[in-house]
Amino acid sequence: MFAVTILGNNSAIPAFGRFSTAQVVTINDKQFLIDCGEGTQLQFSKYKIKRSKINHIFISHLHGDHYFGLIGLLTSMGLLGRENDLHLFAPAALKEIIDLQLAVANAKLPYALHFHPLENEGLIVDENKFSVECFKVLHSIACWGFIFREKRQPRKIDKEKVLQFEIPAAYYNSLQEGKNYATKDGVIIQNDWVTIANKPNKSYAFCADTIYHEPIIEKVKNVSLLYHETTYLKGLEDRAALRFHSTTVQAASIAKQCKAEKLLIGHFSSKYEYLDAFLLEAKEVFDNTDLAIEGTTFLV
Amino acid sequence: MFAVTILGNNSAIPAFGRFSTAQVVTINDKQFLIDCGEGTQLQFSKYKIKRSKINHIFISHLHGDHYFGLIGLLTSMGLLGRENDLHLFAPAALKEIIDLQLAVANAKLPYALHFHPLENEGLIVDENKFSVECFKVLHSIACWGFIFREKRQPRKIDKEKVLQFEIPAAYYNSLQEGKNYATKDGVIIQNDWVTIANKPNKSYAFCADTIYHEPIIEKVKNVSLLYHETTYLKGLEDRAALRFHSTTVQAASIAKQCKAEKLLIGHFSSKYEYLDAFLLEAKEVFDNTDLAIEGTTFLV
Repeated sequence: MFAVTILGNNSAIPAFGRFSTAQVVTINDKQFLIDCGEGTQLQFSKYKIKRSKINHIFISHLHGDHYFGLIGLLTSMGLLGRENDLHLFAPAALKEIIDLQLAVANAKLPYALHFHPLENEGLIVDENKFSVECFKVLHSIACWGFIFREKRQPRKIDKEKVLQFEIPAAYYNSLQEGKNYATKDGVIIQNDWVTIANKPNKSYAFCADTIYHEPIIEKVKNVSLLYHETTYLKGLEDRAALRFHSTTVQAASIAKQCKAEKLLIGHFSSKYEYLDAFLLEAKEVFDNTDLAIEGTTFLV
Repeated sequence: MFAVTILGNNSAIPAFGRFSTAQVVTINDKQFLIDCGEGTQLQFSKYKIKRSKINHIFISHLHGDHYFGLIGLLTSMGLLGRENDLHLFAPAALKEIIDLQLAVANAKLPYALHFHPLENEGLIVDENKFSVECFKVLHSIACWGFIFREKRQPRKIDKEKVLQFEIPAAYYNSLQEGKNYATKDGVIIQNDWVTIANKPNKSYAFCADTIYHEPIIEKVKNVSLLYHETTYLKGLEDRAALRFHSTTVQAASIAKQCKAEKLLIGHFSSKYEYLDAFLLEAKEVFDNTDLAIEGTTFLV
């Protein structure tokens, strides 16, 4: 399973029952938290996300609606007796804030919190079956997007065909990795004659808070699911630019240009009580769009 | 009107839908916030408390469940265009945390935030019709309680009686202050012959997080409404002492000894899903007790 669960979709101020940004990415048995607005741990309870399952947290930038819930989550994890290491990827200054808040409470976390300051674009988590990269977006302060990628799935052996071509079992691993096989007589057996492609490798890109910024397109090219902020409807393009945010049409245009399979939009301004217009406007440009509604889990 | 509205009553970690500590005190047309656990601004929305009505905030101590919601509230007030001054009374280190969180966001509040570090016991707000005092309680870090007092109401003139005794109107003010009147012949007209007592002056004491600490009794003597924490049921007196918290019986005993009219208990441990036992145990010692249930407004 590769999925994204929305815990918060509102910008700046909680409003109309909508929380600030937080998303949980699930890849098989692992879960990752992206951003952690105020009340995220309350949303964990509401939507039955276990705090203990989270071993990696990614914070896009240090505007409060993206991290004010973090210190509460970290200390709650401690109070609940967590012992497993926790990895936190965030702009460097966050460490100072956390350290200060622990110090004034005369508190120590009972688990190791590994702080990884975001400094350069590229790979930040590299595990057997998936990886996470960070990339820069363009906001009023330093701000990072994240891409979660399943790793290349091994090809499946076509049992009938490998027998037919008399390929020794010792070569099956290299066939699964996509390599060809050469017989003793120098005849090349093409890999795709004897193997079958596995399911495609999915990817999820979280574009954080950003102005319409075309360099993003190349970075998130061909992702399966793209989350792009849409703080405003298309009529407020000037205001969006002034505040380093995007509109519906701009987000959808990025999705179209990067050839995403599907677009998820969120980070709605507290100006808007109803969200229907967001979906309508985005779909005019990129049809396969969904609203990042809280509590909903989207398969990547 | 003099009342207390409960916005959060749980200790340490939000649990069973209960939020961390926050209370709004209303004295006529003024409102005051005591403590501000994570999600307090969400509770403001739920219980229709207007952020703009709050001009004074009191933070008892720097454990997260008493202030992690503050920075979100302060920045939301700014984003909503607040211009009125805001007075914050809290342990000194909180200023550093707020300043740091504003700095990393490259943000400035559009209103004046007057920070008043809590240093000595005594009067911290002194207005025409009410006052606020702070006093020390005994917790694992520096921790403050607060007492809100209505000021002495002037006595009411008994119009029939002042005419009967032929007291000139110029003396009415001094009669309202409780003074006697002497006629030209040296006859003393006792104040209570010609005036009527106004309603008694009410007071509310918030005892914050504290171990059972008898010096508190003198400080909150005769308050109308006493809030005292009861993190644990009476069976866990040892654990309470170890963690600088109180039990039901201890809170009720303080209420009894200080001759409070009524006791409000809260700051329940996340161990307890149901709160009935808290009320039963406290009532065994001090009958006029209520649970600080979220959303409830208690008249002082």
